[in-house]
Order: sequence, then C-alpha cells, then structure tokens
Amino acid sequence: MKLLAKVIDIEQGHNEVVLNSVQAQAMDFAVGDRLQLKANGFVAQAIVDQSATYLKPGEIGLFHEIAEVLQVEDGHAVEVEPTRRPASLDYVRKKLDGGVLTGHEISAIINDLMAQRLSSAELASFISSVYINGLSTDETASLTEAIIASGEVLKPPFEPAASEHSIGGVAGGRASMLIVPIMASLGVCMPKTASRAISSAAATADVMEVLAPVALDSKRIHAVLQEAGGCIVWGGAVNIAAADDKLIKIRNPLRLDPQPLLISSILAKKKAEGAKYVVFDIPTGRGAKVESLEKARELARAFEVFSARLGLRVSAVISDGSEPLMSYIGPTLEAREVIRTLASGGKEGSARLSDKACFACGVLLHLIRGVTQEEGNRIARFQLENGKAYEKFKQIIAAQGGNPDVKESDLAPGEHKAAFFAKSEGTVNHIDNKAISHVLRALGSPRDKRAGIAIKVSKGQRVMPGQELFELYSSTSESLKLGEEAARKTEVIELQRVVFEVV
Amino acid sequence: MKLLAKVIDIEQGHNEVVLNSVQAQAMDFAVGDRLQLKANGFVAQAIVDQSATYLKPGEIGLFHEIAEVLQVEDGHAVEVEPTRRPASLDYVRKKLDGGVLTGHEISAIINDLMAQRLSSAELASFISSVYINGLSTDETASLTEAIIASGEVLKPPFEPAASEHSIGGVAGGRASMLIVPIMASLGVCMPKTASRAISSAAATADVMEVLAPVALDSKRIHAVLQEAGGCIVWGGAVNIAAADDKLIKIRNPLRLDPQPLLISSILAKKKAEGAKYVVFDIPTGRGAKVESLEKARELARAFEVFSARLGLRVSAVISDGSEPLMSYIGPTLEAREVIRTLASGGKEGSARLSDKACFACGVLLHLIRGVTQEEGNRIARFQLENGKAYEKFKQIIAAQGGNPDVKESDLAPGEHKAAFFAKSEGTVNHIDNKAISHVLRALGSPRDKRAGIAIKVSKGQRVMPGQELFELYSSTSESLKLGEEAARKTEVIELQRVVFEVV
Repeated sequence: MKLLAKVIDIEQGHNEVVLNSVQAQAMDFAVGDRLQLKANGFVAQAIVDQSATYLKPGEIGLFHEIAEVLQVEDGHAVEVEPTRRPASLDYVRKKLDGGVLTGHEISAIINDLMAQRLSSAELASFISSVYINGLSTDETASLTEAIIASGEVLKPPFEPAASEHSIGGVAGGRASMLIVPIMASLGVCMPKTASRAISSAAATADVMEVLAPVALDSKRIHAVLQEAGGCIVWGGAVNIAAADDKLIKIRNPLRLDPQPLLISSILAKKKAEGAKYVVFDIPTGRGAKVESLEKARELARAFEVFSARLGLRVSAVISDGSEPLMSYIGPTLEAREVIRTLASGGKEGSARLSDKACFACGVLLHLIRGVTQEEGNRIARFQLENGKAYEKFKQIIAAQGGNPDVKESDLAPGEHKAAFFAKSEGTVNHIDNKAISHVLRALGSPRDKRAGIAIKVSKGQRVMPGQELFELYSSTSESLKLGEEAARKTEVIELQRVVFEVV
Repeated sequence: MKLLAKVIDIEQGHNEVVLNSVQAQAMDFAVGDRLQLKANGFVAQAIVDQSATYLKPGEIGLFHEIAEVLQVEDGHAVEVEPTRRPASLDYVRKKLDGGVLTGHEISAIINDLMAQRLSSAELASFISSVYINGLSTDETASLTEAIIASGEVLKPPFEPAASEHSIGGVAGGRASMLIVPIMASLGVCMPKTASRAISSAAATADVMEVLAPVALDSKRIHAVLQEAGGCIVWGGAVNIAAADDKLIKIRNPLRLDPQPLLISSILAKKKAEGAKYVVFDIPTGRGAKVESLEKARELARAFEVFSARLGLRVSAVISDGSEPLMSYIGPTLEAREVIRTLASGGKEGSARLSDKACFACGVLLHLIRGVTQEEGNRIARFQLENGKAYEKFKQIIAAQGGNPDVKESDLAPGEHKAAFFAKSEGTVNHIDNKAISHVLRALGSPRDKRAGIAIKVSKGQRVMPGQELFELYSSTSESLKLGEEAARKTEVIELQRVVFEVV
C-alpha cells in the first residue's frame, strides 16, 4: 500500500513511523509492530506508532532516522507492507536453547541488527544468551568477522601498520598519546582510533580533542596517516565495526561484558583499523576493570588466540591498574601532561606514563622488527629523549587540523577551584580510579574540557592533618559545587590507619 | 530543571519525550537515556528523543502516553531530572548470573516494570535469564503474587466462584461459552475473563463479542455477575494482572514460553478474577501447543502445585487437541454453533463441544460440591438438556448489553465464498488447527467477524476426488482471495494415501 510521507524531525535512535489509527487498524498493524518501507529505491524496516489526530488516513509520519535512510521528504510516496519474521530470530532462539551457531547464522544476526530488523529486546535476548551460555572459539571468531564486515575497513597508506589498545579503567591512562608519536617517528604507520568517555570521565578521544579535531572520516584519516604517519581520532566518526556500537548500547545498562563479546568488540575494531601488529594493555588490580592476575592472564590468552585467527600479530601487557597513571586528571589537564612529557623528552610530566608507553613500544618493536623487548624499549626511550616523538606529535596535531604550537600555559584548568585536605595523619594507601572518575563527571567532564582533579600526594606518602590531598577544577561554580559534593561522599585518597575506631 | 510541555499526539506503547538538541546536550542527556519527570503531582520516567527543529530550548515534547500519565497539556510546567539506575537491574543481573531471587527482589522487578523504569531490552534480559536459568518454586510463587499485585483483583459478588482456563491452540475451542452458563445455572459464580486472538485467528473474547460487548470494566463486571451469575468478558479491558501483558509483549517475538512464566501468567489471571475453583484444560496432541502426554502431565502437576500455594482448588484436564472442536470456525460461525448447541440442549451443534464442556463442569462440581466427576457430568448435561443453560446464557448476553434473542439465522458468515475439493481419493487423516488458524487470519479474522471456515468432512471419513472438503467465507472479495491463496499453500485437510508417488 502506498502512503504519503510527512517527515517529523525528531531523533529517536532507531527507525519509527506513525500511521493514522484508523488506517493502522484496517491494515492490521498495532503499536510496536514492524513493517517494511520502500521509497526512492531504498528499503528499510520500522516500528509502528499510531495517532488519531497527527495524520490523516493515507499519510505516514516518518521520524528523522527513517526519513534519512529512505531519503524521503514531505509528500513523497512510501510503499508499506508487513515484514516477515527475520530468520535470525530462530538463531537467537537456538542460542537461548544452548545451541552452537554457524558462521552463517551469526552473520545473519549481525546483518539483521544492522538493517534494524531486530528490536532492542530481541538483541538483549541474544546478548543474555551469550552471557549465560557462552560462545565457542569458532562462534567468537565468526562474530568478530561479522562485526568487521558490518562497517568500513581502513587501509593503511604504508606498511607496517600497528596499533595499541587498552581495556581502560585507569584515570589518566593516556599512554597511546605517547605510543603513537614514538612509533610513527620510527616509520611505523599508527592508525589509532580511540573512544570517547562512556562510563569514565575522559577517554583518549576527549583528551586529544583538546589539541586537535578528532571526528575525522576515513578519507581524512588516510590523508593524515599519509602526511604524519600516525593519528589519534575518534572511532565513532568512522564507520568501522558498526555493529559493535549497537551491541554496546544494549550491554551497558546491565553491564553485561561476557568475554566473547568483549574480545570480538576489541579485535574487530583493531582489525578494521588496518593494523597488523597490536599491543593490548590489561590494567589489573584493585579498582581496575580486571582485579586478579588470573583473570588478566585468561583475557590475554583469549586476545592471542583470536588475534591469530584474524591474521593479527599481537602481545598483551598486564599492567598495574590500581592507581591513576598521572597526577593531573581531566581532558585539558591530561593534554597538558602529555605535552609536558613529550616536550621535555620524558624529564618532566608523568614518569609512569612515559615508562608505560616506552614499554609498550618495545613490545611492538619486538613483534615488528624482531629486536628484543628491552632493545625496543631503549629505542623508544631514545625517540622520546631526542625530541623526535614530540616533533612527530606536533605533525600529527597539525595534520588533524589543530595548533601544533600549543603551549602548556594554553592548557589551564577551570578557574573555579576547591582544595581538599587530610583530616588525620596517615599513609596514602590507595588512590581510587573509580572515585576520581565519579568526581570528575560531577565536575562536568568530558563536556567541560577544563574540569579536572590534581592529585597532590602519592601512594605510600605520609600525610599530616590539614595537608592538601587534591584540588578540583571546573568552568562553572555550579559544577564545582556538584564535584565537591561528590568528593565528600566518596574516598578519592584512602589513608591507612593503624587504629580504625575506639569503642 | 523546569521545561514547558508541548504535547505530541502520537502513541508509541511506552513513555517517550523530546528535548531540544542543544538543551539535551547542556543537560547531558543523549537519545535513549532515561529521565524522571514530575508534573501535576505525578511522577514518571521516560526515554529521551532529540530534535533540533521541533522544539525550542526550554520546551519538552511529550508523546501521548506520558502526557496522559502526567495529565499534562500544552504549556504546563514539567520538572525534569536524571534518574537513578533502578535497583531491580541488579536483580536482573543476579538472575543472569544464575542466582536465586527473593520475593522482595522479584516484586522490585515487577514494580519497576509497571513504572516504566525498565527498558524492553532490560526486560528481555530478565525473561531470557528465566528461560535459560529457570525459576525455583518459591521464585515462581513470588512472581505470580507480584503479577497479581500489579493490577486490580476482582471480588465475586457471591460464593462459590469458579472459572475455567484452556491453554488454547484448538480451533473452535469455545467450551467456556458452555461451561459458564451451565455452572452459573447451578448457582456458581463464573467470572470468566477471556483473551482476544494474538497468534490464533479467533479467541473466546472475539467470539463472545459477536453476541455482546466484552470490553467491560470491573464495576460493570461486578454488576453483570450480580445480575446473571456469570460473564464472558475481555480480560484486556480490566486492569487485572497488568504486568503480565507487558511480559507477554516481550516474550512473543522469540516465542519464549518458559514454564514458570506460563504458569505465573495464567494463575495470576485466575486468582485476580476472584475464582476459588478452577479447571484447567491442556489440549494435547499433533499440532496442539503441547504435543506429548508427558509434557501435558508435567504442566498439569505444575498448575496443581502453584495453585495450592495461592489458595486455589484446581484440577487439570488433558484433552485431545489434535483437531478442531467444531466444524464451523471463525467468530460469527463459532457464535452460531454455541447458540445452536445451547438452544437445542446439545442435540444439534457440536457434540464434541458439549461433551468437553459437561466433562469440565463435572470436574468443577466435584471440587465444589464433592459429588463424583461422573455425577457432576450428568448434572451438567441435565442443565444443558433442560434448557436452563441456554436461559442462563441469554441472561448473560443481556446483562453484558447484547441481544439475548439473537437467532442462528442472524449469524451468517461473509457472503464471499470459495469451496475446496479433494483432488484424489483417500481417508481424512488429520484436520490441522494451525493451518485453519493461518487461513482464517488471511481471510481477515478476527477483525472481520464474518470471516470463517466450514469443515465439510470428519476424521476417518473416506472421500472421493471432487468431494467438497471445506469452504471459506469473507466479507470482502480481496480478503477471500488472500484466504484462498493461504489455503492453497497449506494443508488444512490431510488425506492418508497408501501410495505416495510412482517413480
């Protein structure tokens, strides 16, 4: 049946259309049903809403996303018909029943996911069944390949191409902002796509954005790589591993991170970046995403097994994830620390950051050039100390469209400040990543790039009552207040006390 | 933050609001996030959409459902704030992890479901986890109680009150339309709430609607019971076991019928009807919902166990569900068969229907009065034969607002007809419920009440080439064509042949 389009400029995150109630009844469509639409040579599926007043019979309301997919404007003809039940629902059901899916079945699920033929409820059932029943090695490999095929695959302009990925969870974990320029200065192509903060307060894309645009499409990325040999861009702006973002959206509310989905999500992105050599970082310890060495080793082994099947050469590094990697946290402050570390050749800034970055470069150089990891580490350190890494970083900033001559003094935190002090004497026992992230979000990060926390003490240090522990920064007094409140309710700096209480 | 309401009269089946894109960014809300709304003393949650053009900053667009919940009109002030993560998500996660939920945790899930605090994806995860990990006896009982508490509970105007429930799947399965008047004629209060067709082509509420209004609220139901001693109404119009409808919506696409959810769904509805004595019908056999006697017995035991915990006295009857209960299928035709059977005292109409109904009444009378089932059966048969059941049915029709003097001749099927004939000689081996349902839907049932199928042969009968097997009816020639097409593609009547093929 042909209906006349009426575009409703509202974004909903999925395909939805409105039918006149009388018409919908006559066509036997209820609210929430799916139907198939054809217009201008495009085909898509959408969910049905109804209205008695918004539309006349003979009209169909198209919300923003579906109007865009079909390239429909007001008054265009839209052909409407019922959809068949997608075959992939049977495969989801098979997984729920504990079955093992074939490669064909898994790619049918991912295809239907991309074509909006599966509802979020149906996808949630798939993810839940994977969480409970697991995926075999073959299934995980098939899923990874299907996710890669769901989006673009970048082609590096020259070889060898390498990348780095940390599973995250460490405040100030900006090692890749050193690894990329160090490796690129050694002639290795470094196509790094990074994420923005989701549950954390600032991710690499948020920090790099302080220095240069990061929302580059694949053409621009290719040009940057050709010009500077490396990039640090936001993965969300490139259409790589497209299915993964949709899966993550469903996983987030229930924090469902079944290992097969974690593995396929990360590997698909690395493979689609076009890198052949990858170093994985698994921060481990109290408050990190992985708390035990045993779990970290299991994850490392899984990375290695599945990487081999995808033709990637990888190593996984298990690092200390129990405290922040820098003392200055927040987009602008972290960008400043990175610049300070690079500009000083590693003499100033964060020693932990440069140590970690050089170690990872050593591992990559071992994979790529066959030198020992120690030699690789020394080579990387040399590039940092002789200023080549800083030069390269400036080239990358310039190629992405930023100002390569940005100074530390240009990178000031918000002018609204509040310092926090020790209430008692004690030794610093723990600096908590999750608490920092929580307070930083309350301060307005990552939206407010100048929101930040400066940690004024280090682990093991003896502090006296009244000594400054940390300082908060924000661009507005309202956000500062919210940050202070959050800091009072959580323990950013934990002091070890011999006596807990006197009863 | 306070925003000004702009009502958008579009129904979506859930709570959704629109924010101006700039405003949403400033407030840190993304598309798909949840927020809490307060207006006119009402509180509710909703999902965020965005628009750059539809709204100005300072405005909030409210779709139909949420505008109704908050009783908001254009220009009203709406207080908007972020929501906390509902605690029930942790309980869903616990079930995914194989844990056992407490009564408190289960009722938190059902409460959050009712308050729209859980997304359909989150609910799907819950249902999937129940499907895979199961529910204990205690969990199932808690779930049933939570579902009962989620809606109204009817109070019968007099005792004893009884009811009947069939798990369905049999074409023409209208035994309850005889059971209700027979039992009511014996002084038993019969508050029967029935469903409309979902996957089938006609359910009891659709058939009763041919004779009388069925969308009665609880007050009207009470009045009908007081007046006539029984009713046959549509359960969807009364707010009983409200959470169940929402769970069923999620279960349908994946056809997830885990036994604990099936049991709690049915028992919650019976308990909320106010019945104390219930007979369950489990049609079993080829093409029925339950195919093996073993599965049927397991289900029957489950009904008995959980009913006892709810203070219900029940029996389950395992019946032959391998073929239709009547030869005339479709809302109007089934209503006519029911009238014909009742009006003739069981001498005409469907003998299988009256046999089944009298048997079920015997079981109920055994539970209620302590007579043997055989005596009960004879008592029921007597009420049918002496016309008391028919008198009672007419009272019920009148009390619900229908015409009690409706004649068989008033109940004609659609005037567009098509007969189907045997192509070869053979013995009728099987009459398929699912095929009938499929063809009937294509003919327009249950929307077109006069869509129907008349089966002209019976199981075991010898037929000759060219002999009429069945006839289709519809109100429009277009629907008839669709029905004919469906009938050609499926096997409504299966003939047994000795030789399948000559090669």
